[in-house]
Amino acid sequence: MSQTYQRIVLASRPTGAVTPDNFRLETVPVPELADGQVLVRNHYLSLDPYMRGRMNESKSYAVPQPLGEVMIGGTVGEVVASKNPKFSAGDKVVGMFGWQEMGVSDGTGIQKVDTTHIPLSAYLGSVGMPGVTGWYGLNQIIKPKAGQTVVVSAASGAVGSVVGQLAKLKGCRAVGVAGGKDKCDYVVNELGFDACVDYKAAKDAKELYMMLKEATPDGIDGYFENVGGDVLDVVLSRMNPFGRIAVCGMIAGYDGQPLPLKNPQLILVSRLTVEGFIVSEHMEFWPQALQELGAGVAQGKIKFRETVAQGLASAPEAFMGLLKGKNFGKQLVKLV
Amino acid sequence: MSQTYQRIVLASRPTGAVTPDNFRLETVPVPELADGQVLVRNHYLSLDPYMRGRMNESKSYAVPQPLGEVMIGGTVGEVVASKNPKFSAGDKVVGMFGWQEMGVSDGTGIQKVDTTHIPLSAYLGSVGMPGVTGWYGLNQIIKPKAGQTVVVSAASGAVGSVVGQLAKLKGCRAVGVAGGKDKCDYVVNELGFDACVDYKAAKDAKELYMMLKEATPDGIDGYFENVGGDVLDVVLSRMNPFGRIAVCGMIAGYDGQPLPLKNPQLILVSRLTVEGFIVSEHMEFWPQALQELGAGVAQGKIKFRETVAQGLASAPEAFMGLLKGKNFGKQLVKLV
Repeated sequence: MSQTYQRIVLASRPTGAVTPDNFRLETVPVPELADGQVLVRNHYLSLDPYMRGRMNESKSYAVPQPLGEVMIGGTVGEVVASKNPKFSAGDKVVGMFGWQEMGVSDGTGIQKVDTTHIPLSAYLGSVGMPGVTGWYGLNQIIKPKAGQTVVVSAASGAVGSVVGQLAKLKGCRAVGVAGGKDKCDYVVNELGFDACVDYKAAKDAKELYMMLKEATPDGIDGYFENVGGDVLDVVLSRMNPFGRIAVCGMIAGYDGQPLPLKNPQLILVSRLTVEGFIVSEHMEFWPQALQELGAGVAQGKIKFRETVAQGLASAPEAFMGLLKGKNFGKQLVKLV
Repeated sequence: MSQTYQRIVLASRPTGAVTPDNFRLETVPVPELADGQVLVRNHYLSLDPYMRGRMNESKSYAVPQPLGEVMIGGTVGEVVASKNPKFSAGDKVVGMFGWQEMGVSDGTGIQKVDTTHIPLSAYLGSVGMPGVTGWYGLNQIIKPKAGQTVVVSAASGAVGSVVGQLAKLKGCRAVGVAGGKDKCDYVVNELGFDACVDYKAAKDAKELYMMLKEATPDGIDGYFENVGGDVLDVVLSRMNPFGRIAVCGMIAGYDGQPLPLKNPQLILVSRLTVEGFIVSEHMEFWPQALQELGAGVAQGKIKFRETVAQGLASAPEAFMGLLKGKNFGKQLVKLV
């Protein structure tokens, strides 16, 4: 074990798009453990769109990330030293240590996980926060019935892939929206969605509408929103009466781009319910969700894909790529 | 009783704003009653924003109003002849006879009402469809708790006035948005709202925001939307976390004006629920709502104001005025 480790702190707040200057890589000494503490070597860092909101000073999901402190983030790793009777060296744990190679905990905020049937990294994706996000939006907001049509944007991503696969398991027609032929092919051929619309292949909103219409011949009963912008406008115009929209993210506007909704009247005309949510505010559902998602992954019913950047120093670039949709599936940073 | 009566049919569909040409006044003979039928002389015709949607061919609330047929509309009147044992001459009834001086029914679609403590015209307003609309949106969608702040647009209108007064009865802070000092004064001084924002007095969205901020020092927990456009944008930015928005109408866009929502991201950021509804799809709540509203009006706890146009021929102009907010309170047409 080295006597120092690396971490990345927020150096400045972005004005518009995130730049490498917003981050600073630091080398710091590994602390001595006090009684009750656990030292964890992080194997994977999770990169997620919500982090972009934290980088702003303004009102967003939650309190802003403080300047000069380690960037927030979910991690999975292995206990390398423990002065806490509940943890032993070798234990695999999931935690929120952020963008750093190691982390110290007093035992709170970390949880042992079983990697017998589930790969460690999946606890940051389908069997972690993104998976529960998809589960919650689908089951608690969209609440689809068998035979209904559920659409999800960013369909090949960590959240979207879970939404569509869970919808299929419920007997729904699952339709993805994703950027590029590769992602769409994956969504249909590997994840088993019924159809996927490549929004990048549409030259304008009208063509996007026609593509979506073909993919949703019976209209749309539920929509899981990760993106915002044109996609939301077009989906709104395909919604069936009493449709439900779970608003999980609007990544298209995270750098401050205006994302006007052209026809909010459709909320009235089609008597829709549109509900924004943040999964960390619904912790009471996590145990049930994680159990179902874990079983699904272990049984091969929920598949996923990962894009893995190598080494902590690659995190800023990987994060900037994530915000532009350059990742394919769950974006991780491998730290060891 | 004259042997003919007048009615107004939809002559053509508007392209943009409604014009007098869209309507045609006709004189038709009073029909002979068959067994089981009732002849009603309508005293008041109700004019309501939803009628605008019916005039279009395109997808709207409901099936379009057919060309050449009597314009849809709620009415109250008096039975003048009956061959139905359930109705007698002199009975006061509420019905949906539309824009005409008389109507024939087989007894379905009309309901006797008691005018001992409630004026006949109120059955088209606070104790009718508009009242139930306000009741449903407030109680079934916004569901405010005592001490919370509820905002309603078109606050002096038939729906808005009920929303605010019911909110006050629940111990909420009720804040109206209305056009002009007279309406705002009425909303506060006569209806008992805590505050009212005159949107016409704001020179831009920023000033409207400042006015609304002053009127809602603790933010907004529930919003009842009748208007759309700038007001909705500004309200959204004052919504508290987990706020609820009942979308009842977006009258500002009924002639096809674009009504883009500038910051739909706020639905996510503030974890809002936005729900569109049409009260006629929730008939199971009408008996309870009408009972509460009737008691409120009879006891003087729910006040209302009416703008009454004289004679059927005045209906088109009164309707066009309604769509521009020229009415003050419930817009009626007096037919006798």
